Amino acid sequence: METHKELTIGLFGFGVVGEGLYKVLQQTPSLKATLKKVCIKNADKKRNAPAELFTTDREALLNDPAINVIVEVIDDADAAYAIVSRALENGKDVVSASKKMLAEHLPALLALQAKTGRSLLYEAAACASIPVIRNLEEYYDNDLLHSIRAIVNGSTNYILTKMFEEGLDFKQALVQAQQLGFAESNPKLDVEGFDAVNKWALLLTHAYGITESPENILFNGIQNIHALDAVVGREKNQAIKLVAQAQKLKNGKVAAFVLPQFVKADDHLAFVKNEYNGVEIESGFSDKQFFYGKGAGSFPTASAVLSDISALRYQYKYEYKKLYHHIPQEAAAGYYLRVYISFDDIALVPKERFEWIEEWHAQQERKYLVGVVAYDELRKHNWWRENNTSLVLTADPVIEEVETRKLKKKSLELAGIL
Amino acid sequence: METHKELTIGLFGFGVVGEGLYKVLQQTPSLKATLKKVCIKNADKKRNAPAELFTTDREALLNDPAINVIVEVIDDADAAYAIVSRALENGKDVVSASKKMLAEHLPALLALQAKTGRSLLYEAAACASIPVIRNLEEYYDNDLLHSIRAIVNGSTNYILTKMFEEGLDFKQALVQAQQLGFAESNPKLDVEGFDAVNKWALLLTHAYGITESPENILFNGIQNIHALDAVVGREKNQAIKLVAQAQKLKNGKVAAFVLPQFVKADDHLAFVKNEYNGVEIESGFSDKQFFYGKGAGSFPTASAVLSDISALRYQYKYEYKKLYHHIPQEAAAGYYLRVYISFDDIALVPKERFEWIEEWHAQQERKYLVGVVAYDELRKHNWWRENNTSLVLTADPVIEEVETRKLKKKSLELAGIL
Repeated sequence: METHKELTIGLFGFGVVGEGLYKVLQQTPSLKATLKKVCIKNADKKRNAPAELFTTDREALLNDPAINVIVEVIDDADAAYAIVSRALENGKDVVSASKKMLAEHLPALLALQAKTGRSLLYEAAACASIPVIRNLEEYYDNDLLHSIRAIVNGSTNYILTKMFEEGLDFKQALVQAQQLGFAESNPKLDVEGFDAVNKWALLLTHAYGITESPENILFNGIQNIHALDAVVGREKNQAIKLVAQAQKLKNGKVAAFVLPQFVKADDHLAFVKNEYNGVEIESGFSDKQFFYGKGAGSFPTASAVLSDISALRYQYKYEYKKLYHHIPQEAAAGYYLRVYISFDDIALVPKERFEWIEEWHAQQERKYLVGVVAYDELRKHNWWRENNTSLVLTADPVIEEVETRKLKKKSLELAGIL
Repeated sequence: METHKELTIGLFGFGVVGEGLYKVLQQTPSLKATLKKVCIKNADKKRNAPAELFTTDREALLNDPAINVIVEVIDDADAAYAIVSRALENGKDVVSASKKMLAEHLPALLALQAKTGRSLLYEAAACASIPVIRNLEEYYDNDLLHSIRAIVNGSTNYILTKMFEEGLDFKQALVQAQQLGFAESNPKLDVEGFDAVNKWALLLTHAYGITESPENILFNGIQNIHALDAVVGREKNQAIKLVAQAQKLKNGKVAAFVLPQFVKADDHLAFVKNEYNGVEIESGFSDKQFFYGKGAGSFPTASAVLSDISALRYQYKYEYKKLYHHIPQEAAAGYYLRVYISFDDIALVPKERFEWIEEWHAQQERKYLVGVVAYDELRKHNWWRENNTSLVLTADPVIEEVETRKLKKKSLELAGIL
């Protein structure tokens, strides 16, 4: 309608997402957006689109005054950052799907958006087809968002589902995920939690106005999850998921981490299987909400990119309300987490680093315990990632009450257990 | 930021939602929206807000040039329609939560939006805290939306949950819902499906560009659901839900109805319990998505109204893309539904109106059968609502293949079963 901006798009990248977007755009004439040029790295590769659409010259897009939107779906985070910054500085709106780049450069990109007044949208960078960023922007004013818990990585969720439902061990499940295209041939980014924590850094900004760089967030992946852990989970009727969690504490700060976690059968996240993603939001006004959908793949990602392009027509921008219009929240430290750890050799478990230990199971070859440990301990030390140790948070893992804890530790000491 | 419209609000209604909104606005200073005046019907009622905020004079809001947004959360559909129309004609943007009014007057309201160029938003009118209208507007281009299935009425879902999980009969469960405030003292609108079909009429417009008035949509409520139906459901490990469904057929038309339906344990909708709502969307690009949240209540509704107010700041309008930018879809007829019906007296069941019958269970006092019946039969006749008959669609109820059906009918006739 009359208020709509006419969009002429320059696209960077024509891999599975870029090509998906090209097809989606062709099937959505109602958008009336023109794809003028596509910048690719390798000119010799055969493409399923007319040859005149392609160029290897970045500047042909960035300096074309007719192009008012740059869409960037390339794999190289450094190149992506250069492209996105230049595009904003040249007065173009930008849509990006590069979670790693966005998470690592968010402060600079926030400054660039403020300076240029242009819009940078990236719904596809977190949970793809689930419109979680837009919802966090539009809903849940700062002090009303009690918690957000999410499964943001489809590859690890696929692997965990197979370990649970078919009893595969980690390596078998990983190979299967790779064969189906749900995990990269170098799966480190997914499996060790890097992809999840990058997404979490972005979502924390929109949820709470927290701008932590990913390496300052406590995280791990599922690389150490053992077949026994799945057995223990099944005995308790709980699944293990790689859960990204942020939770408002009584002191007003936000406990945030990405770690494997036991989830009960009636937990919304237990419902999320295979390569799907899910987000559970608990807030003062709307109570519990749950969003579920595909978090990756060419079409779900392209569809999210498309919704951003569509929003640019009415000049939509993220407002970063919780960052700019409120006192931004702070990431909490000084709280405690209830954890399960399994291990081969008890001698290598530093029991003294626990506040207290609640359960011991030493009967089998692979042993495990359940205990409470300080967040700061996990942040600062790595013993729980080493020696084939597997750490999984228990359901409802966050403990705030320090007094009870101290008392309990003392009583266990007196009883000679610690 | 600079592009934002300053909002000055005139509010109609100060019941649970109006007062909820007043509180939510006070707790969301970041919105920078001013509530200038509230129009109420009864001046003598005590209100939890300063007296100078209130007036009983409609014109004081509608004719105030300083007020640029009218928010309407009143119960009276006729008055709501008069207010919303006048407000649009006076150049004000409007937010409404009156599903009945909206569903019944949608064609006139579409014309008014086109004529005045003003924005009419109503996220709160369907599924309240679930942003389903906005998502249907922004995602899922016409021919890509395979189906949408939803639980849109919290009262009936609460009642059905109690019948299933606690074995209550319909009347006991209804009384409990009323005591908890999930059902009106006159529960007819909820229980007999009127509320659900009003919401469904709205969602069909945003999903498929279908503008059917509610009375042209096949619907029923849960008033006839019998305790035996719950027993049968439990035996099959299926729940009964009041499901609003729309599904693209092979002929390109859309089968749409609101009827009780058996849902399997792994169906997303089986997950939706008590007073919650849920929406499952299946589309070409994003595959299956699922949204879950509170569909009613003062704060969830107020929160949805608030998100609409927030969107008005950047002059957001529904585009009704599927209606205006595509060939709108047509509601289908001429397809078939697989149904379960239970009844007291077999003599009163018109077996000849079924295409074929697949199961008979006549051993108990209350009897049931499973068979296939034409959509048009259910649309045009009422035998299935009468004589204490209870009709529940089976899981996956839509049947398109006519040839197989005819063959089957013939074979059953030959076998002497019909």
